[in-house]
Amino acid sequence: MPDTIPNERIIQETHDRIRPYIHRTPILTSSYINQLSGCEIFFKCENFQKVGAFKARGGMNTLLQLTREELQKGVATHSSGNHAQAVALAAKMTGTKAYIVMPSTVRAIKKAAVRDYGAEIIECEPTLSAREDTLREVVLKTGATFVHPYNDYHVIAGQATAAKELLEDVEDPLDYIMTPVGGGGLLSGTALSAQYFAHEKNTQVIGGEPEGADDAWQSFTTGRLVPQTRPDTIADGLLTSLGDKPFEIIQKYVADILLVSDPEIIHAMRLVWERMKIIIEPSCAVPLAALLRNRERFTGKRVGIILTGGNVDLADLPFN
Amino acid sequence: MPDTIPNERIIQETHDRIRPYIHRTPILTSSYINQLSGCEIFFKCENFQKVGAFKARGGMNTLLQLTREELQKGVATHSSGNHAQAVALAAKMTGTKAYIVMPSTVRAIKKAAVRDYGAEIIECEPTLSAREDTLREVVLKTGATFVHPYNDYHVIAGQATAAKELLEDVEDPLDYIMTPVGGGGLLSGTALSAQYFAHEKNTQVIGGEPEGADDAWQSFTTGRLVPQTRPDTIADGLLTSLGDKPFEIIQKYVADILLVSDPEIIHAMRLVWERMKIIIEPSCAVPLAALLRNRERFTGKRVGIILTGGNVDLADLPFN
Repeated sequence: MPDTIPNERIIQETHDRIRPYIHRTPILTSSYINQLSGCEIFFKCENFQKVGAFKARGGMNTLLQLTREELQKGVATHSSGNHAQAVALAAKMTGTKAYIVMPSTVRAIKKAAVRDYGAEIIECEPTLSAREDTLREVVLKTGATFVHPYNDYHVIAGQATAAKELLEDVEDPLDYIMTPVGGGGLLSGTALSAQYFAHEKNTQVIGGEPEGADDAWQSFTTGRLVPQTRPDTIADGLLTSLGDKPFEIIQKYVADILLVSDPEIIHAMRLVWERMKIIIEPSCAVPLAALLRNRERFTGKRVGIILTGGNVDLADLPFN
Repeated sequence: MPDTIPNERIIQETHDRIRPYIHRTPILTSSYINQLSGCEIFFKCENFQKVGAFKARGGMNTLLQLTREELQKGVATHSSGNHAQAVALAAKMTGTKAYIVMPSTVRAIKKAAVRDYGAEIIECEPTLSAREDTLREVVLKTGATFVHPYNDYHVIAGQATAAKELLEDVEDPLDYIMTPVGGGGLLSGTALSAQYFAHEKNTQVIGGEPEGADDAWQSFTTGRLVPQTRPDTIADGLLTSLGDKPFEIIQKYVADILLVSDPEIIHAMRLVWERMKIIIEPSCAVPLAALLRNRERFTGKRVGIILTGGNVDLADLPFN
């Protein structure tokens, strides 16, 4: 595993490596949302990515760099969400076995999605320690390689390719790129791509985070890594603690982290569903919510927003 | 108003006329749905069209051909759905006034969408006769031009441009194009475009219709126009009776009309939401439902499906 921050060449090589296995997702715009927000927004639609989320990028990049010996023993991770599907799909594509530790409380539909890719699910109690213990047992027993969802430079380099594509596909320079921040893989990768691939490095990267899971904001503000305890937000993809590897990059290259409330997240999510006719999950609506809350800051600017994913439970939506 | 079926030149001119005012909507594919159906499907995303539905095409084409004198007096229609918004938007774009007769039972959010375009709403009782009577009064009083939602060759020529774009944008020939059928404007226009613009005229056009509103199927099968009485289906954009002008074209140029049940519609709708992450309304899911019900007929074929619209009430979805 590389132990230095991915440089420009590594992210370029990462993109070349994963390109055959991922979608180059489209960039959509909405004249209604532009008018409402007073700026020009370019939505990079990773909700259309394989497995319905950007996580396919990091997972694919990690597995494509395993040795033949490692691939024979398989890969393992714990996840209740998009990372589980990303690792399961990458395993299928590289012809290896995936062991996915999932809390027993996860809905059947999510387990089915992972099983559809041929992965083996190992259930555990719905606590972080049970997940980590169970994963350790699986790794010990099988010799599988643990694929971390974000605290890993292969993963960060993979996630960085979304912003790289965004910068390549939008004709004129962007003033900002915004992403949500949970573990920090996407936000840190985006910050690297903005450094390496933005026109004259003039694109600032800003994270959006729920008030109910604000450890990245706290860490960013105080300058030391604050773990997330008892998160409480509808943005269920952003409950995890910021990793130390993403944090180092975020401290160096991210301009700001903005907080939003759950009602603001639901409002932004609804706006995208109703006006753009595309499905995004609550976590994915966080950057747009942050932009709308801080409208004056973005007035007249050109803003890229990475729409991170579209995996929602249609039987349990926050609209009424 | 032209009283003959639009020919190739007229549809070409129609497309040139409305092009600056409409989106050239993207064509999406889904490897999952292709695998499931055993054929290759090209979804023409009119749910991303202005006002969220293909109706913007026909409305725009009609208003762009009104005389200056007619435009001074405005336009009128009755509609509880997408046609109302289409006429309101076209009126705004051509700088004329729109009078929209809507049943009093229509949800506030739909009225707001029409009012947002600057149209005047005239409420009436929720019956067809009340709608027609109220419209007649409005036209008498104002001198406004009635814009019919489908039984009009300008409208049919406008709707035909969706299939024309589909045929232009998909590289290889299509075996089929499928659309829903309600009043018949889209299905008949699509059949004309397939005649004029498909490679060697080898593209068959097939309509999908709900079992609970099967007047087009009955008319097509018996060869005489059967009006729709007491429709009962979740596909609320397809409740209306087939018009005699579309019927004449459909009899000549449409290969078949296939029926589907409401559970099949909901299943197809859910499939598109979950797998393609785009929002479509129940009426829009009818052709895919028909394809899935008649899978063997389409095995190995290349099928274009026009996704007609994405206007749903997020607080009242058929998923559970």
